[in-house]
Amino acid sequence: MHLSELTHPNQLHGLSIPQLEQIARQIREKHLETVAATGGHLGPGLGVVELTIALYQTLDLDRDKVVWDVGHQAYPHKMVTGRYNRFHTLRQKDGVAGYLKRCENKFDHFGAGHASTSISAALGMAIARDLKGEQFKSVAVIGDGALTGGMALEAINHAGHLPHTNVMVVLNDNEMSISPNVGAIPRYLNKMRLSPPVQFLKDNLEEQFKHLPFVGDTFSPEMERLKEGMKRLAIPKVGAVFEELGFTYIGPVDGHNLEELITTFNQAHQIPGPVLVHVATTKGKGYAIAEKDQVGYHAQSPFNLATGKAIPSNKPKPPSYSKVFAETLIELAENNPKIVGITAAMATGTGLNKLQEKLPKQYIDVGIAEQHAVTLAAGMACEGMRPVAAIYSTFLQRAYDQIIHDICIQKLPVFFCLDRAGIVGADGPTHQGLYDIAYLRCIPNMVLMAPKDEAELQQMLVTGIEYTDGPIAMRYPRGSGYGVPLMDEGWEPLEIGKGEILRNGDDVLILGYGSMVHPALQTAEILSEHGIEATVVNARFVKPLDTELILPLAERIGKVVTMEEGCIMGGFGSAVAEALLDNNVLTPVLRLGVPDVLVDHAKPDESKADLGLTPAQMADRVLQTFKVQLSSVR
Amino acid sequence: MHLSELTHPNQLHGLSIPQLEQIARQIREKHLETVAATGGHLGPGLGVVELTIALYQTLDLDRDKVVWDVGHQAYPHKMVTGRYNRFHTLRQKDGVAGYLKRCENKFDHFGAGHASTSISAALGMAIARDLKGEQFKSVAVIGDGALTGGMALEAINHAGHLPHTNVMVVLNDNEMSISPNVGAIPRYLNKMRLSPPVQFLKDNLEEQFKHLPFVGDTFSPEMERLKEGMKRLAIPKVGAVFEELGFTYIGPVDGHNLEELITTFNQAHQIPGPVLVHVATTKGKGYAIAEKDQVGYHAQSPFNLATGKAIPSNKPKPPSYSKVFAETLIELAENNPKIVGITAAMATGTGLNKLQEKLPKQYIDVGIAEQHAVTLAAGMACEGMRPVAAIYSTFLQRAYDQIIHDICIQKLPVFFCLDRAGIVGADGPTHQGLYDIAYLRCIPNMVLMAPKDEAELQQMLVTGIEYTDGPIAMRYPRGSGYGVPLMDEGWEPLEIGKGEILRNGDDVLILGYGSMVHPALQTAEILSEHGIEATVVNARFVKPLDTELILPLAERIGKVVTMEEGCIMGGFGSAVAEALLDNNVLTPVLRLGVPDVLVDHAKPDESKADLGLTPAQMADRVLQTFKVQLSSVR
Repeated sequence: MHLSELTHPNQLHGLSIPQLEQIARQIREKHLETVAATGGHLGPGLGVVELTIALYQTLDLDRDKVVWDVGHQAYPHKMVTGRYNRFHTLRQKDGVAGYLKRCENKFDHFGAGHASTSISAALGMAIARDLKGEQFKSVAVIGDGALTGGMALEAINHAGHLPHTNVMVVLNDNEMSISPNVGAIPRYLNKMRLSPPVQFLKDNLEEQFKHLPFVGDTFSPEMERLKEGMKRLAIPKVGAVFEELGFTYIGPVDGHNLEELITTFNQAHQIPGPVLVHVATTKGKGYAIAEKDQVGYHAQSPFNLATGKAIPSNKPKPPSYSKVFAETLIELAENNPKIVGITAAMATGTGLNKLQEKLPKQYIDVGIAEQHAVTLAAGMACEGMRPVAAIYSTFLQRAYDQIIHDICIQKLPVFFCLDRAGIVGADGPTHQGLYDIAYLRCIPNMVLMAPKDEAELQQMLVTGIEYTDGPIAMRYPRGSGYGVPLMDEGWEPLEIGKGEILRNGDDVLILGYGSMVHPALQTAEILSEHGIEATVVNARFVKPLDTELILPLAERIGKVVTMEEGCIMGGFGSAVAEALLDNNVLTPVLRLGVPDVLVDHAKPDESKADLGLTPAQMADRVLQTFKVQLSSVR
Repeated sequence: MHLSELTHPNQLHGLSIPQLEQIARQIREKHLETVAATGGHLGPGLGVVELTIALYQTLDLDRDKVVWDVGHQAYPHKMVTGRYNRFHTLRQKDGVAGYLKRCENKFDHFGAGHASTSISAALGMAIARDLKGEQFKSVAVIGDGALTGGMALEAINHAGHLPHTNVMVVLNDNEMSISPNVGAIPRYLNKMRLSPPVQFLKDNLEEQFKHLPFVGDTFSPEMERLKEGMKRLAIPKVGAVFEELGFTYIGPVDGHNLEELITTFNQAHQIPGPVLVHVATTKGKGYAIAEKDQVGYHAQSPFNLATGKAIPSNKPKPPSYSKVFAETLIELAENNPKIVGITAAMATGTGLNKLQEKLPKQYIDVGIAEQHAVTLAAGMACEGMRPVAAIYSTFLQRAYDQIIHDICIQKLPVFFCLDRAGIVGADGPTHQGLYDIAYLRCIPNMVLMAPKDEAELQQMLVTGIEYTDGPIAMRYPRGSGYGVPLMDEGWEPLEIGKGEILRNGDDVLILGYGSMVHPALQTAEILSEHGIEATVVNARFVKPLDTELILPLAERIGKVVTMEEGCIMGGFGSAVAEALLDNNVLTPVLRLGVPDVLVDHAKPDESKADLGLTPAQMADRVLQTFKVQLSSVR
């Protein structure tokens, strides 16, 4: 059987081990070929090919539920659930998504994108099943990295308390998050991995036997029997943490041995109550280059399969915001030992891995634990440090209460650097950084800013470090800057709450925020071709908003356009609308940004075009909206 | 020495055990006397009197840091840090706060109110200390309930990974959250509590010895020695979970034995790296009535010390929103087995304890774990259940990402019931429910509503249960309703997104949301006395907003006032402002609500008066703001 004929995962049931191995090879081939062409997550999926096949051999997916954590490792799942023939469209607009979506496929039983949600969802399904009196299996597949996220541990605590609720947790232990794991739990898992049950016990016991008062170097047969007995006594030690928390622990099992996996899953399905199956996998399995560099090949842009090297893009790109952020932070941190960069398992994504190399003491990776990251930063701020929490806009949602409760209420000087704020592209709706302006703006004591380009990011980084009156956040987009000259000396902090006028015109007032300032200027140029002259303001701060600058301009010019790469409900445009009305400046306002819809995966430019946010589209919107008023001026 | 003379916690250092016991008695006396008079948290503080004294005897609080989790157990701490003489002002406006505040006292090293933050903060302080090359101790005191919160477990995972970072976690194990604890971790702690080290091992070993192949009923002296040796071998079993996670575990220790506590803390301070001291305490210790009813006496309104009975208020109050919510939910759930009420350790606060009594299968308490609660609900919704997540507005902040990522992106029909939305009174800034409108409004697919009174709450409860197109949230305030007649039959769901006109007038348009609708009517009456006639609309929904109703009224009447019990940045008034401007209805708008400040503890009416939100104050604001326009109409 070829994978292309496999339209339903239950078709795996009848296959022999050699046939399944063949399917595994086909999955790997397609996986590699596709990601090499389209880019995407490489290592995670390659590591769970056998896990996926074996698990599905033991389940009836018409009834049973599988919840994949994060979802970036679910490419094999996608290929055996009818998406093989469309798989080449991976992460492309209107193509197969890079994560899981209930609306994409009926076997995506629960959507994902962020980490640590799967056990909660699978347990919810299991509890619902029991209440309805139905019979099916509910399985969560979670990585060792995601297991350190607080909500996964909350779910373990709950599930372990329900001895009569059958739920299986498959722990996909590849010893990595994106970067090597952080924390005591991964270290504990690693200890078990390195010492499979018998070996672990043997070493342990022999070591400990030496300390027994009467045991010498010579063993009698009776002593050998005693040793065997003690082995049994000590068996709960492997997986003891899970056993103590109410789970039946099984493992570790070789995650690339189909036969062993199938046997283990079948056994595990027989065990009542919560069960944890510990599967040892290798990230990037089957592609030697990826196995060797697991951080580098976690996810990839298009690359040459033979060499593993990225395919260079046609035109060289300016440095990314993340890169400029990291390099500037390092320069600042070298001269200020109080600066500490904090990441929650996104060292490479945020660029902080470079800080780690240069100034390891001023770098902290807390693992997938945004809540802890934020309150840890609060504790450090209490002691006079300058913590810089570099967290993606979408992941900071995880620490919302900590921002309010531990940072803003106490007015602690923590500097939040929100990478990937705005449209994120191929990662899709779970990763869009669209809500941060709205969810941070409403909290007292918070200062919010966004740079118009990478040079202003440098200036705002200086500003944020210098500002010690309370919390401050800077948002910046995914991807490349504009290639503007970077500042190399004489960095001066910006004045808090002050914007700047970039262009003067009497017909319309355009207020741009962050990444929409340059598009605002382009829009103004297009309008100018239509004889409409715009004043363009770089707002810089949405909180405090520069009302001293904005209100007189709005009063004089009379037609206001706001532009932001974020949700318009409660966002920058809303802040401007509030300021105008609070000050009784009654003038038409056109708020441009992301409307109240989910934004699917696509190239950022494609999404922006869909949302009407290209300069040409925005110029059109301005012309249409203000037609009456503008024609009356002219 | 009398407690009133103790102005600095270091004064405890010189005291003998009998003197400390005397201090303990004085603390208990003042604690009981004060809470009986003012209301407040009773059980938690009484349980940690000795823990507090003993810990402070072993610390130098001019240098060392103590982070108390939650803070409701910190009354003894407050009394030994210079607040004894003001303690009678507890939870009163301008008096001693019920939780911890850095701005209240220099020994409140970290503020608190919500659970599970202390280990992160204490670890942050410890890391900062080491970076600065300073020497002090950093201690977190956390309850067993709070330990089940995900962020505490994230912090344990991180701290356990840092063998060279000295940080102490004091586990105040009273076997309770507000209600009995939920989960495998508390059960594990309980197991250790019930079996102090030696006893635990003995029982365990003797049981297991029987299964050894060669061991019969007769023990030789050599076998006795073997048994002793094995005991040593097995010692890591007590506290094994913490030991495996990198902590040195000490305990359990009797939390009411000062001598034992002091000895243990002193020993623990000598141990490098992360240390967990497990202290077994009794909630309500020293007040028999509270020891017996630990749920009932967790927190109390003013009561008679001799009888423990609440002092009846002068005038009988109408039923609380929580009570009406719970009773109505029970009625609905009795006829609909798909309804399941979910609480995160707030069974009594939300009223869901009544659901538990009546329909235990349709009730879930997940413990202090809001993140898990929300995604568990998502899993249940996937299976066709009607999960009703009853979570305070302030605590739902903990599950913000789950609401976006697991509920709204997937458009799952989970019904959020946000109790304590608005001004909460004596609990102060950490507990104010002010941000939910702003933080929920910006998420696609979310429906938001708020009832004007307890009868409309019933109707909205029906509405929320009937609405299965996606997520829906209802917010309602703390405290009593208006005593309006409750509906007893014929509950019809409201039309989603439709408001109602309650009063007609041509001079001003008042749009009220939720708890501000009745005050809006009162404001209209006052305005009427000044010859100004207002139209009053009960908006019912902020999302979708009833623009069909509101826009024509705004256009006709021309002066708009919005009233909400929430932050005005991004809130209901902001939604109205957006709608007006989006539709080019250019009219003055006065947005009344909570401005961008923290709201301190006080009686709700006192806070509202401070914020200018009484009907008389609001009428004044309307008159002042629209003076010009109104005088021109008349």
